[in-house]
Amino acid sequence: ANRARMLISCPDRPGIVAAVSQFLYEKGANILQSDQYTTDPASGMFFMRIAFDLGNLEQNLPALQEDFARIADRFEMRWSVYRAVRRKRLAIFVSREDHCLLELLWQWQAGDLDAEISMVVSNHDDMRGLVESFGIPFHHIPVTPETKAEAERRQLELTAGKVDLVILARYMQIITPKFIEHFTNRIINIHHSFLPAFVGGKPYHQAYDRGVKLIGATAHYVTAELDAGPIIEQDVQRVSHRNNVDELKRMGRHIERIVLARAVKWHIEDRLVVYQNKTVAFI
Amino acid sequence: ANRARMLISCPDRPGIVAAVSQFLYEKGANILQSDQYTTDPASGMFFMRIAFDLGNLEQNLPALQEDFARIADRFEMRWSVYRAVRRKRLAIFVSREDHCLLELLWQWQAGDLDAEISMVVSNHDDMRGLVESFGIPFHHIPVTPETKAEAERRQLELTAGKVDLVILARYMQIITPKFIEHFTNRIINIHHSFLPAFVGGKPYHQAYDRGVKLIGATAHYVTAELDAGPIIEQDVQRVSHRNNVDELKRMGRHIERIVLARAVKWHIEDRLVVYQNKTVAFI
Amino acid sequence: ANRARMLISCPDRPGIVAAVSQFLYEKGANILQSDQYTTDPASGMFFMRIAFDLGNLEQNLPALQEDFARIADRFEMRWSVYRAVRRKRLAIFVSREDHCLLELLWQWQAGDLDAEISMVVSNHDDMRGLVESFGIPFHHIPVTPETKAEAERRQLELTAGKVDLVILARYMQIITPKFIEHFTNRIINIHHSFLPAFVGGKPYHQAYDRGVKLIGATAHYVTAELDAGPIIEQDVQRVSHRNNVDELKRMGRHIERIVLARAVKWHIEDRLVVYQNKTVAFI
Amino acid sequence: ANRARMLISCPDRPGIVAAVSQFLYEKGANILQSDQYTTDPASGMFFMRIAFDLGNLEQNLPALQEDFARIADRFEMRWSVYRAVRRKRLAIFVSREDHCLLELLWQWQAGDLDAEISMVVSNHDDMRGLVESFGIPFHHIPVTPETKAEAERRQLELTAGKVDLVILARYMQIITPKFIEHFTNRIINIHHSFLPAFVGGKPYHQAYDRGVKLIGATAHYVTAELDAGPIIEQDVQRVSHRNNVDELKRMGRHIERIVLARAVKWHIEDRLVVYQNKTVAFI
Repeated sequence: ANRARMLISCPDRPGIVAAVSQFLYEKGANILQSDQYTTDPASGMFFMRIAFDLGNLEQNLPALQEDFARIADRFEMRWSVYRAVRRKRLAIFVSREDHCLLELLWQWQAGDLDAEISMVVSNHDDMRGLVESFGIPFHHIPVTPETKAEAERRQLELTAGKVDLVILARYMQIITPKFIEHFTNRIINIHHSFLPAFVGGKPYHQAYDRGVKLIGATAHYVTAELDAGPIIEQDVQRVSHRNNVDELKRMGRHIERIVLARAVKWHIEDRLVVYQNKTVAFI
Repeated sequence: ANRARMLISCPDRPGIVAAVSQFLYEKGANILQSDQYTTDPASGMFFMRIAFDLGNLEQNLPALQEDFARIADRFEMRWSVYRAVRRKRLAIFVSREDHCLLELLWQWQAGDLDAEISMVVSNHDDMRGLVESFGIPFHHIPVTPETKAEAERRQLELTAGKVDLVILARYMQIITPKFIEHFTNRIINIHHSFLPAFVGGKPYHQAYDRGVKLIGATAHYVTAELDAGPIIEQDVQRVSHRNNVDELKRMGRHIERIVLARAVKWHIEDRLVVYQNKTVAFI
Repeated sequence: ANRARMLISCPDRPGIVAAVSQFLYEKGANILQSDQYTTDPASGMFFMRIAFDLGNLEQNLPALQEDFARIADRFEMRWSVYRAVRRKRLAIFVSREDHCLLELLWQWQAGDLDAEISMVVSNHDDMRGLVESFGIPFHHIPVTPETKAEAERRQLELTAGKVDLVILARYMQIITPKFIEHFTNRIINIHHSFLPAFVGGKPYHQAYDRGVKLIGATAHYVTAELDAGPIIEQDVQRVSHRNNVDELKRMGRHIERIVLARAVKWHIEDRLVVYQNKTVAFI
Repeated sequence: ANRARMLISCPDRPGIVAAVSQFLYEKGANILQSDQYTTDPASGMFFMRIAFDLGNLEQNLPALQEDFARIADRFEMRWSVYRAVRRKRLAIFVSREDHCLLELLWQWQAGDLDAEISMVVSNHDDMRGLVESFGIPFHHIPVTPETKAEAERRQLELTAGKVDLVILARYMQIITPKFIEHFTNRIINIHHSFLPAFVGGKPYHQAYDRGVKLIGATAHYVTAELDAGPIIEQDVQRVSHRNNVDELKRMGRHIERIVLARAVKWHIEDRLVVYQNKTVAFI
């Protein structure tokens, strides 16, 4: 209950680690893990993730944050502190393929995803029974060319300010820039190819046509440009000339769900920082 | 000394395996391995690789080939038979990076590549000593905008009709369509990315800029279109935000050399068939 | 509906492939895939798997089998033919860990496991709801030192002659030789280590204590000797000094379920032959 | 030239990171990378690796070390500082298999191993030419039952106090406890199996007999107990029933050399700490 995680970005220069760790020590915090990365010690950007325990965290955190502002100013830091008990609220968007959703539900139920699944949103009603059997609210929001604007309005109404992370678990509709704006670096999509290969639709068909010997999946933050957001995680699986498109799809499901679940886990554990359309992943 | 390998492609229809295996049995051949693949049993293409032993192969092979023509005609086959003792003659083209060349030389010396390395050709003279220490002829053919045509003429003079396979082991010059024509599906290139991602120059820079979490290498047959020929083999390696371009290059060398060596091994063991810009790999 | 698969083992000698393929051709069967393996062309064992289509299979198969007996006798073959529509009946044994069971249920529901799940048997009642929600019978058979014999009697009553394959999906009770006798090479267990490392209990504790850098899982056929049966499939996952036993267990779950599901899939597709405590896997 | 690396082990308690980083900051050192690990924040062991730059390092390091002693005493630290320019001196022991040696030589020549290869020692004379062509001294020390004691005496004479790390690159002779004593946690061996599976001789034969589906290699520090020292790195490669012992050996060579080279690289970059027969690897 007393665990917190701090994420820091700032221009690199001497003394940052000393200042931060000295500050936390004086506040009585016990550092459990500390990771850092600099793009260039001379004139680059510095990134840091610190997990610490602080007695009576809920009461003491506001004062700690207030006092930390001085250090943050001195080093021109962008920073956040997250209490581990304040579990992130997830909205999972899904269409007709259930494997990514199922993996998230199972890992969540097994205690591997320390988050709250606030809702599942789908443009089809197929998975209502499954989702509700987990005690999770299910919202069926059909999307047609005519209802597209209204659908987005309802999606925003359900999620904006109410969830911390939107997960596109093989959700087959385009997300508009307007929706994305509400969730900068807080929408994770799973793309069923090894990006940047096979951007766009039907990546397994593309992979089959090109005759690749490995297929892949990519979890990334969603930005306005299709399939071009910061990559969080990727993995691949060996295939051969014997595998037709249907087999590629079936084999690919296994990597898709694993890759997506890893990315979600890292996000909810505050392990990811986005910088210049890439992720720094403290894993 | 009596080992042969047969590669067959033809429209699929019933009776092919029976006809071929019955034929070989009647000829006294002992089938060691037989692999087959059909794109579609109904109306697709059928591919087959058979390794067999035949007593007194050198004397008996011409008659066997003559007699097989009847079967080949009946099934409209494209086919070839290769004697294993007739080791393929390789020309390795290289520029300044030595890791792919060295891997091939070691594997060859260790007996893992059952071929003859006829020559190494380079646009630099740097590796002469190394290559000659293996007892392999080295040809320095500089390539400049002015000498390009002449260089190609000399390359063709050295290789056309004299080598069976050209290997571009990080050879950094463009091969012209004219040269390629002489070696259809007999030039293997190693591209230092997971194709079709990062076609063209500086793939590790491209990979770094895109922030991928895996880097790859691709061995493919060279066709007139850059980096678009039939893929033979690919592999990847995990990287992180911590790896700069130089580290990606260094880490990538390990996959490049392994992937290229595998592709070469499969080619010289007659395991590869090209069909519709893809490879059928009997491995 | 007309698809069949034939598995053959016999001493290797010339003419086997010709005889079998000629026979099938004359019967009007269309060979879809044919794989073979010989331990030694000179005096070894020969193994073959053929998938074929035969018109009106149900009516024609008995005659085909009768006629094939002649060939089988001539080559001293052990052989079986399986009709693909005759899906294998599975019994899944499970204790308290649900991940392997869930993976099998999902893959089955998604159509990836072409089998009938006849029942789930458990020494605990926890998963009744889950299993019955899939429309699958659930049998709770508690096992205590006192009831052990009776429990086995009930297990045999439920399964002997009624199921084709028993899957130990993290079933934490010892299977007796008597039970195994009824299911020779038809019980698949998932062991949570890279066998033969860490035989027996608490393999993740053993792995942690030894400080390995990879953890693994092994699917194998169950024999009388603990964790010593023929290995069907194995896979591993990278770990580090940072991972404690609980994390190893959690990470290991992902490989366990994937490895077990692969092994089950290969078994039900008749891709596995056991020979001298090893598996020949035509995959 | 001004780069140093500090390795620290001590009982975990609050304030360590703050004290160390504050100390380095006050000394004018610029921290480039800092990694830490605790077995248990409550009462465990704490490990830290810090890479830093310090102006005029050679002159300033002695004073820094003297002053750091106060902090080290306060936290009961075991610690070392290494100057990066003081490259470690390696002795490579080899018998008849050259692949591990060749890999180390190539990575060293390519600049990937920042060390000095002081000598190669072999019980055979085969590789003298190769080694000397790299400008590296070669010592042929035959080992027979009669000369064993004398051989060890000569090995110690050559290495004790003169090299920093001994690498057994497929050296097929037993190292005695007496020799090991001189190089505690400074002898790296490559074992050609996934330890603890297949301890001792002929691991590929053992792997073949057991029918494993993956083969592995393990780099570990040498202790008095055979193949039981702290594991540094492991990797595996997929094999099948088709691969006989000779093929396993050939395929295994690729993992052996890669795994050994990684372990050596981590050691010479001061990334490894041994604790309770395991390695903490800051990689």
